[in-house]
Amino acid sequence: MTERGWASLSPVRFLLRSRDVFADRVAVTHAGASVTYAEFADRVERLAGVLSERGVRAGDRVAAVAENVPGLLELHYAAAGSGAVIVPVNFRLGPTELGLIFADSEPALVLADEPYREVLPGTAEVLPASGGEYEQLLASASRRAIAAPEDEMTLLSINYTSGTTGKPKGVMYTHRGAYLHSLGVVGEARLGNEARYLWTLPMFHCHGWAFIWAVTAVGARHVCLPRPDPRAAWELIASEGVSHLCGAPTVLIGLLGHELAHQRPIEVFTGGAAPTPAMLERCEALGWNVTHLYGLTETYGPQVICEWRSEWDKLPASRRASIKARQGVATMVSELLRVVDEEMADVPRDGEALGEVVMRGNNVTVGYYRDDEATRAAFTDGWFHTGDLAVMHPDGYVELRDRAKDIIVSGGENISTIEIEATLTAHPAIEEAAVIGIADERWGERPCAFVTLRPGAEADAEALRDFVRERIAGFKVPDRVEFRTDFPRTATGKIQKFVLRDEAG
Amino acid sequence: MTERGWASLSPVRFLLRSRDVFADRVAVTHAGASVTYAEFADRVERLAGVLSERGVRAGDRVAAVAENVPGLLELHYAAAGSGAVIVPVNFRLGPTELGLIFADSEPALVLADEPYREVLPGTAEVLPASGGEYEQLLASASRRAIAAPEDEMTLLSINYTSGTTGKPKGVMYTHRGAYLHSLGVVGEARLGNEARYLWTLPMFHCHGWAFIWAVTAVGARHVCLPRPDPRAAWELIASEGVSHLCGAPTVLIGLLGHELAHQRPIEVFTGGAAPTPAMLERCEALGWNVTHLYGLTETYGPQVICEWRSEWDKLPASRRASIKARQGVATMVSELLRVVDEEMADVPRDGEALGEVVMRGNNVTVGYYRDDEATRAAFTDGWFHTGDLAVMHPDGYVELRDRAKDIIVSGGENISTIEIEATLTAHPAIEEAAVIGIADERWGERPCAFVTLRPGAEADAEALRDFVRERIAGFKVPDRVEFRTDFPRTATGKIQKFVLRDEAG
Repeated sequence: MTERGWASLSPVRFLLRSRDVFADRVAVTHAGASVTYAEFADRVERLAGVLSERGVRAGDRVAAVAENVPGLLELHYAAAGSGAVIVPVNFRLGPTELGLIFADSEPALVLADEPYREVLPGTAEVLPASGGEYEQLLASASRRAIAAPEDEMTLLSINYTSGTTGKPKGVMYTHRGAYLHSLGVVGEARLGNEARYLWTLPMFHCHGWAFIWAVTAVGARHVCLPRPDPRAAWELIASEGVSHLCGAPTVLIGLLGHELAHQRPIEVFTGGAAPTPAMLERCEALGWNVTHLYGLTETYGPQVICEWRSEWDKLPASRRASIKARQGVATMVSELLRVVDEEMADVPRDGEALGEVVMRGNNVTVGYYRDDEATRAAFTDGWFHTGDLAVMHPDGYVELRDRAKDIIVSGGENISTIEIEATLTAHPAIEEAAVIGIADERWGERPCAFVTLRPGAEADAEALRDFVRERIAGFKVPDRVEFRTDFPRTATGKIQKFVLRDEAG
Repeated sequence: MTERGWASLSPVRFLLRSRDVFADRVAVTHAGASVTYAEFADRVERLAGVLSERGVRAGDRVAAVAENVPGLLELHYAAAGSGAVIVPVNFRLGPTELGLIFADSEPALVLADEPYREVLPGTAEVLPASGGEYEQLLASASRRAIAAPEDEMTLLSINYTSGTTGKPKGVMYTHRGAYLHSLGVVGEARLGNEARYLWTLPMFHCHGWAFIWAVTAVGARHVCLPRPDPRAAWELIASEGVSHLCGAPTVLIGLLGHELAHQRPIEVFTGGAAPTPAMLERCEALGWNVTHLYGLTETYGPQVICEWRSEWDKLPASRRASIKARQGVATMVSELLRVVDEEMADVPRDGEALGEVVMRGNNVTVGYYRDDEATRAAFTDGWFHTGDLAVMHPDGYVELRDRAKDIIVSGGENISTIEIEATLTAHPAIEEAAVIGIADERWGERPCAFVTLRPGAEADAEALRDFVRERIAGFKVPDRVEFRTDFPRTATGKIQKFVLRDEAG
């Protein structure tokens, strides 16, 4: 039924349009081969045929435990275009976590390759996600037309939180939310049909920060990269003329330090942790323009952007870096971003008063799958509570100070672990730093730092403590500084502080 | 009432966000003065207070008969943010047309300055739109908070068609439609906060092709220009560092030919008529990047874009010009564009078969105000029928051949007036051309051409007919070529062929 002046919002429409107007342009490249938008859409409709033949109906869940291969892109459109619900799963998870996710979402079908099939629960039929078997599946399938659902609030996907804090929760996205969020990404990233997007970010993570939809919306090119291997990434950057990529700082650090690193202007989006001044300087030297994003799985990925203002171009590098470390402002398609106290009053815009970041609007989840209690708990007062503590600067830009649970309370003083980490990474020898609170009889808690060194660099704990003492308040100087070769991480590269706490405790 | 993961779509949100995150940036400049986004929002809320004090309630109409002054920008947000309905009226209309529009829309209030007040019907209270009186009005008003309506299908505005064909009809826009259309403009125009948008297009025309909303959405700068005077435009281009502007080809021709014209990279959007190769060449020489748009008042303005592909960059100028003369493809936020035959079947994509352009979706009007009959007539089969005849090229790009009523049928052959016009303007002496059909006893109709000459150029009718004969089929050569100094035009610069027909008939 068509109403005058109305059509349901769905990211499926992006592929329908690009098939229509960019039919002969390259849509996806992978392992030296490429497909056009006409071919991409054809493959999607064949995969939709496979789903239909296997009995997948509207509302059924279809999971994927897959790397950044074309099959995972195709599944997003095939499932969405059939009214099925995508469950993109982190391929680094183990059998226990997968068991919980499958028990919760009850997928009718799962796409997975070796070695990820090994650890799958035996509760769903398994199809290949890539390779000869997958190609055969498509070749023998009959096409089923994809379409946007009539109800734009139809469930599009369930995205399990990556588990920095405990049991995964299933974050629900709607077609409307993903569509609007993607338009925001197109606008903020200035994406156009000439863009070449390199898949250094996992596709399973919030639909690859919506780039699964946004790149398709503008008829640009998806350059697949199964895993963020720096050598493969640099080879593709050179051969495909990559113009855009995303990644957590740890992924960018991997790229920056590689022997194939070379100058090239690239629009780089980073999030998950604030980029450090040292890292930004190295990015600039390569010609990258780095934009800092912030969001959560519950907000369709990045919903906040450190939107650059042309008047800042002429500031000295250190000032620009400290501006870029701020999380920033709500994107165009988001509701206003607030930092509130416990009475839900906005904190003053003074860059000092600490409050919780709360969000609402079209690109905030409608709730957790089959978990009304968690949904109610997260949405007090109608706002989604992020659990992130931040200050609001006078210019309206937000800067995170800590996860509520990562703040250290020492002798009644709040200590921001982020502040100490930023100070440590300003030291030329330090690659990354993670600070946690450890129990202290006298002070309640005291900071303890873990650091990794840059290749070939040396430092000792005392010198690092002195370095921090010279720069920030004495009570913030970590009692201990421990050296590591790497950190425990989530699939997206975030440092898992709860593991460090367990180790330290 | 707030639903989780949902917020009503409304362009009012763009100003609320820019007030929040771009408070101290310049929003609007006019006559050497400027206001920031904080000040702009404050003025809007004062104007909303004025409306409220004057008894304007949700659903009431508020008209404006005004040039491109800040007051007209402000009225859009004040009315929309109060739930009132904007009726932006072409200030070039006479008392008869204004009488029809006021009788149809029954505005509670109208903003107008001299000399436009002279011709207003006496049915509504008149307030100033600019100047000292307007400033006084704002200064003495109390602020009324603006907000997005809860129902995104709320009527936002009534836009009277500019009357190339007869009695004005009131085209209704919704908050949802304008919001989505604006996001499309942001994406397609690559608008960012550094943009300086010059108001060479009338604001009253389809909300200035949605730039009233889009420029605000990204926190860019509105550079007001009351009327498209070429000298004033060039002075502002230089002093304000203008980066974007829109205008019908006739407006661009006015700029191109001015003595102050100088090199400067500007993103230029044109529509209403296809840009000619000769004009495009002159634009390129100035450093302009011209994008051709197409749409109607019924489609929120331009809904179709001749989206440029990077692979076309290296084509010769003449080929690029002929590509740019095509109307193009539906924008990202539009439903698929169709060219259909009388049975609503898509015409073949061969660049030859003629069909009617039909559209539907979020950025198509919900109908004509108080005119169900006209609405039904325009929306046969659920699609809006544009009345424009076009071909579909193999690459999915649409190219208009004619308005259904502008096609000339001569001896059973269809003759495209656009084709003859494009041929004539390729002649170095010709500035603009308009071709109409005149009754002919033998052939039914025959083409008759009206032309204006470029400054200082000379040509005679016979030589021009020969010029056409060498390039297109003999039966398309106009029987008559008449010289004029200017054309009768609509407010947006479209040539009013019905006036030419009356004169010729």
